[in-house]
Amino acid sequence: MNDASPEELIESQAGEIGLVSWQDYVCGEPFVFENGRQIPSITIRYETYGRLNAARDNAILICHALSGDHHCAGIHSIRDNKPGWWNNIIGPGKPVDTDKWFVVCSNCLGGCVGSTGPTSTNPGTGKPYGLDFPQLTIRDMVRAQKKLLDHLSVARLFAIVGGSMGGMQALQWMIDYPDYVAKVVALATTGRQSAQAIAFNEVGRSAITQDPGWNGGSYEKGQGPRVGLAVARMMAHITYLSDTGLEEKFGRARASESDGKPFGAEFEIEEYLRYQGQSFINRFDANTYLYFTKALDRFDLYGPSGRLEDSFANVRAKVLNVGFTSDWLYPPSQNRALVHALLRCGRDATYAELDMKLGHDSFLVHAPELYRLVSGFLGN
Amino acid sequence: MNDASPEELIESQAGEIGLVSWQDYVCGEPFVFENGRQIPSITIRYETYGRLNAARDNAILICHALSGDHHCAGIHSIRDNKPGWWNNIIGPGKPVDTDKWFVVCSNCLGGCVGSTGPTSTNPGTGKPYGLDFPQLTIRDMVRAQKKLLDHLSVARLFAIVGGSMGGMQALQWMIDYPDYVAKVVALATTGRQSAQAIAFNEVGRSAITQDPGWNGGSYEKGQGPRVGLAVARMMAHITYLSDTGLEEKFGRARASESDGKPFGAEFEIEEYLRYQGQSFINRFDANTYLYFTKALDRFDLYGPSGRLEDSFANVRAKVLNVGFTSDWLYPPSQNRALVHALLRCGRDATYAELDMKLGHDSFLVHAPELYRLVSGFLGN
Repeated sequence: MNDASPEELIESQAGEIGLVSWQDYVCGEPFVFENGRQIPSITIRYETYGRLNAARDNAILICHALSGDHHCAGIHSIRDNKPGWWNNIIGPGKPVDTDKWFVVCSNCLGGCVGSTGPTSTNPGTGKPYGLDFPQLTIRDMVRAQKKLLDHLSVARLFAIVGGSMGGMQALQWMIDYPDYVAKVVALATTGRQSAQAIAFNEVGRSAITQDPGWNGGSYEKGQGPRVGLAVARMMAHITYLSDTGLEEKFGRARASESDGKPFGAEFEIEEYLRYQGQSFINRFDANTYLYFTKALDRFDLYGPSGRLEDSFANVRAKVLNVGFTSDWLYPPSQNRALVHALLRCGRDATYAELDMKLGHDSFLVHAPELYRLVSGFLGN
Repeated sequence: MNDASPEELIESQAGEIGLVSWQDYVCGEPFVFENGRQIPSITIRYETYGRLNAARDNAILICHALSGDHHCAGIHSIRDNKPGWWNNIIGPGKPVDTDKWFVVCSNCLGGCVGSTGPTSTNPGTGKPYGLDFPQLTIRDMVRAQKKLLDHLSVARLFAIVGGSMGGMQALQWMIDYPDYVAKVVALATTGRQSAQAIAFNEVGRSAITQDPGWNGGSYEKGQGPRVGLAVARMMAHITYLSDTGLEEKFGRARASESDGKPFGAEFEIEEYLRYQGQSFINRFDANTYLYFTKALDRFDLYGPSGRLEDSFANVRAKVLNVGFTSDWLYPPSQNRALVHALLRCGRDATYAELDMKLGHDSFLVHAPELYRLVSGFLGN
């Protein structure tokens, strides 16, 4: 991540977008979900950086992962002490070059950061949707993004870039809209959720739905299953890192201060996880967590035939897929399998594997090798 | 595990112990814990199989893992549909041959299956100890086992066999009582808990201690933080298995029946984990879970110097250490490091690595290669 202060970010002419702001697209027509259910309208919150060219074909769509949102680069105010979540890769002169491309990123449908999701008001009842929000798939997220891009008059996507759940969206995009997508960069992702990945998600969902605060998905904003959501996040966070990475960063270092309580944090890693859990519940909604993890678990490009090739038959995009050696959530083998299937279909695809220690989250951290790969692939 | 019916087990003359029963050893003198605190007496529940010889030197101590207990072989009644947890390796003619050795297994101090622990009555208050039970270490467990063996007039242990937390006990035994232990078989274990392993334990403890049912560790028997304990167990269970093992056993198979509830089990792996969680809370105590996981996390034979050699300086036992390729909780590298350090100290130690798919729990399953290794090492 970029360590520059907000002032430095704004004053810098080299490499930083600086101040950005989000917008809302309200699509007033009914949105029909993959399972057939519909809601009367949806709002998609998004940010754009750079300018759409006259041919309207220089857009790059950024897709966020489970806990991400539309704010992927720049800062929202000069008091903002943290730039967007992928600021290291997006900006003027960066691999996703905002001097060259029109970059779009939206909060996924079902999300809790401005786009319509379980926390949004159900116009039929005047109360939050809660569990009345229809069950959601990666394909639904992609269809909502397509509506946004149509609204923005994007004729064709030059590229889609995403990691993890964002990588799933990128893959689904090139399948569902083969003529609309020129290039796909899919990082640290998979063609289907493994049993182990489903298992971890199920533990998180169990922690949430068995928390009395969940109340069948009906709770006040800022309330709800805070304990269950924190536990789910703490556990999931371990799966985003790696044994080696945790050992190098924390090892058996003692906690900075004991709270004196029985079974309080004794090791630094415990303090760190508790902090991750607590900060997450202040920014994320438990129902969205349930809906998103279910969308992940249901994602299966292998389909009934068990053959990725059947999903990739009509793909026309050029694909760069990157796996990370220490990623055990979506390990290299699951990434490689995507490219192998594309190659067997005669598609234009390539696989790169980066030897990084930070586990699944490697795609988010400072990684010059990744920058060069993405930059080269996008043709900067 | 052995699939024979109870009747078959009893009638079988070849390889099954058949009916066994537990006993309690009440040690009426104060037990002083490693941290200096003491309690006025302890009870250790145990089982023995086979006979102690005249020289009283043919005993093998079995040490159980986190969720195990003293009942490691045989059955308690003819209606018992499940033999002890390590029945596949212990019995007449088996690797731990009860025709030859006097086998002892006790519920660890701090446990919840008969030995003194947080659920036991505090004689000072007449109520369960709860959090008044002193903080516990692997060394404390070993010292309680030594008291039991003295009570049983065992002059010297021919061997100690244990996996996981049981392996830690075996290692601690040969360090603390170097002249008392001839051979050690330590399976799927470690010289110190890694940051990742601490992290998973901390998530489990967070789920338990934040469950309102925990109530600071004070709850009625059979009550308590049932949701938190189930969540902790579900998560931990994933760490005992492997990505490959889960994929082969469950993959994306659908749940046998949907309960129709929102976010109910949709995949078989979810059903399986829920079952594991529910069955665990009916047999295990949440406070014991907290105390045992803390004992695991504090286990560190590397000590302040960071050198295993300093712990192994006085070891005299002959050691067989076995790692399992798919074990990512205590991976092969952590096992090998034990033997390498023993070898650097000039000790008699050997390492074997078994290529098994079932993860950490590989040491508990049917594994003829493991049987032959243990059998050969014990000199059957």
